[in-house]
Amino acid sequence: MQRQDFRSSPLGLHRVAEPAGALPQAAWRLDASPGLWPDEARVRVDRLNLDAASFRQLTEAAGGTAAGPGGDTAHAAAMRAAVLGIIAERGKMQNPVTGSGGMLTGVVEEVGPDSPLGLAPGDRIATLVSLSLTPLAITDGLARWDGRSEQVPCDGHAILFGRSIAAVLPADLPVPLSLAVLDVCGAPALTSRVVRQARSGGTPPVVAILGAAGKSGSLSAAAARDAGARSVIGLVPSQAEADLLTASGLADRVVIADARDPAAVAETVRGAGGPAHVTVVCVDVPGCEGGAVLATADGGTVIFFSMATSFSAAALGAEGVAADITMLIGNGYVPGHAALALDLVRTEPGVRHIFEHRTAEG
Amino acid sequence: MQRQDFRSSPLGLHRVAEPAGALPQAAWRLDASPGLWPDEARVRVDRLNLDAASFRQLTEAAGGTAAGPGGDTAHAAAMRAAVLGIIAERGKMQNPVTGSGGMLTGVVEEVGPDSPLGLAPGDRIATLVSLSLTPLAITDGLARWDGRSEQVPCDGHAILFGRSIAAVLPADLPVPLSLAVLDVCGAPALTSRVVRQARSGGTPPVVAILGAAGKSGSLSAAAARDAGARSVIGLVPSQAEADLLTASGLADRVVIADARDPAAVAETVRGAGGPAHVTVVCVDVPGCEGGAVLATADGGTVIFFSMATSFSAAALGAEGVAADITMLIGNGYVPGHAALALDLVRTEPGVRHIFEHRTAEG
Repeated sequence: MQRQDFRSSPLGLHRVAEPAGALPQAAWRLDASPGLWPDEARVRVDRLNLDAASFRQLTEAAGGTAAGPGGDTAHAAAMRAAVLGIIAERGKMQNPVTGSGGMLTGVVEEVGPDSPLGLAPGDRIATLVSLSLTPLAITDGLARWDGRSEQVPCDGHAILFGRSIAAVLPADLPVPLSLAVLDVCGAPALTSRVVRQARSGGTPPVVAILGAAGKSGSLSAAAARDAGARSVIGLVPSQAEADLLTASGLADRVVIADARDPAAVAETVRGAGGPAHVTVVCVDVPGCEGGAVLATADGGTVIFFSMATSFSAAALGAEGVAADITMLIGNGYVPGHAALALDLVRTEPGVRHIFEHRTAEG
Repeated sequence: MQRQDFRSSPLGLHRVAEPAGALPQAAWRLDASPGLWPDEARVRVDRLNLDAASFRQLTEAAGGTAAGPGGDTAHAAAMRAAVLGIIAERGKMQNPVTGSGGMLTGVVEEVGPDSPLGLAPGDRIATLVSLSLTPLAITDGLARWDGRSEQVPCDGHAILFGRSIAAVLPADLPVPLSLAVLDVCGAPALTSRVVRQARSGGTPPVVAILGAAGKSGSLSAAAARDAGARSVIGLVPSQAEADLLTASGLADRVVIADARDPAAVAETVRGAGGPAHVTVVCVDVPGCEGGAVLATADGGTVIFFSMATSFSAAALGAEGVAADITMLIGNGYVPGHAALALDLVRTEPGVRHIFEHRTAEG
């Protein structure tokens, strides 16, 4: 049954199969049928980019790193079955444990007459809205995916609503690089905004990035410096990551600590010129709230970008140590975010170095 | 084993039993033994005030509202067993499902020589840090609690760390009223700050409060008006709550909608003078993120106070509808929060009316 007032809702309410009335992101199941409503567009999907928290959870649930003869094959089969099962059941790739999704690339196949997105058939695009709200069907069994990379080659289709932001992929950058950058482009954009706001209130802020040698972390470090941070402290978990970050030149100080150890994080950031006025959490494991709170000066701001963030741990953690800080839920949408992130990759060799290293790992 | 560098940590790290290195709020288990470290204080506890999300979860897990003969007794026994079990296992009252706690009242029993809290034996106090990080032991089996109220009469002891904020209870207000007010005093303080910031940026903001007839909601409504909101829209789920809120006079507009229905919330707030520049979420049920996002104007702010908030639902929900809004994790600590909230109860008869109604329900 279609409600007249929900016909072609720009938010996609008309595609929600259950529960009724939910937004597509919060819904359990979407209708991913290929027929278009007038303001929709359909994309032939060639690649999914699972978000880091989801990929980590799926990998752990599938038994972690495979070992021994036959291990790789079994692991790949388990990963494929998990992702296909979720998409078949939910009509979208939203990890039921982490609640998160990722993004996709593909080629625009058909555009409804009322679509406001400005796309044309044949455009090569990436979605900038989460897979967790994008109707999706897979038709190739993910046969080309080995389960080892967040980037999943595939064949299938996806639906874009009237308000589903998508970016035409730039011609001057490799597609996997653009995809990886666009997936996390909200982080540098919001970091840039918060650093500029802090600057406008007085002195340039000290910025600490937890997980600075990762994708969103390296972009956020570059954005913070670009926005006028006094100094950028990059915190990483290991000597290998420290070497990578140091080579990139993106951080003024590179320090090593376990982001889940609050006392260690606070002490390490303090020793590198902190506490921070702006702390950016880009570590995709649970339990980093306390360290971020303790590393931040009174009156400062923590931006949580990790989907592994616990709302109650952050709220109660700050209260529990009487920390007068502002804590932001990292909104993945900031106007101009895609252009800002792609420009950082073009102008900051250190960002590109880290992204190419990360993509090579996958 | 005590680490020398953790001796009498003002954050209570020395009381963390497992896992080592965690902050007390994030820890699974605390050491609640009554002997004091030099900067601690011990309180003889006479009442726990469970937070709303935790109480609701415990009530539902115990089978909801009891019905029929003997139902009350069975329900009370189940609730007592649940709370006693958590405290015995964890050394603190932190609901393992919601992660949240609440607060307590009692009389200061002993103060270590280095305690910075300014308390003396005999002071009647309420804690302003969460039960989720406060070492606690119960000795009376909760025999006087019927399981029907968030306020749990009890006997036992609790430990305050060097940085554990506590307030001496005011002499001019009934203790249950002060306790209920102090439990949610972070909400009006942060609402007041955000409304003042919005005002300083230009015109006075339209403020929408989801759950405005509740405790944190009514205080936030009063704080928003006090801070100079252009108008306060109070959203409630039922006619009974609408009548209560209307009688209180705390909202300029009173509207009815299910806060979990995003389209309904957006439409209702819009019809009452929205979208809001500041939206405050005080509804203690899951699934209110989408409505709050859609009810908020671009450039506006959502403050999430409900412990039932899902971080990923908020982050991805805003991204999914391309909403350029700031989303705040409601930090329970803002300097001066206790005094601000108690003053609102003294000066706004509508707030006191709602609190007395809510306490009578319990």
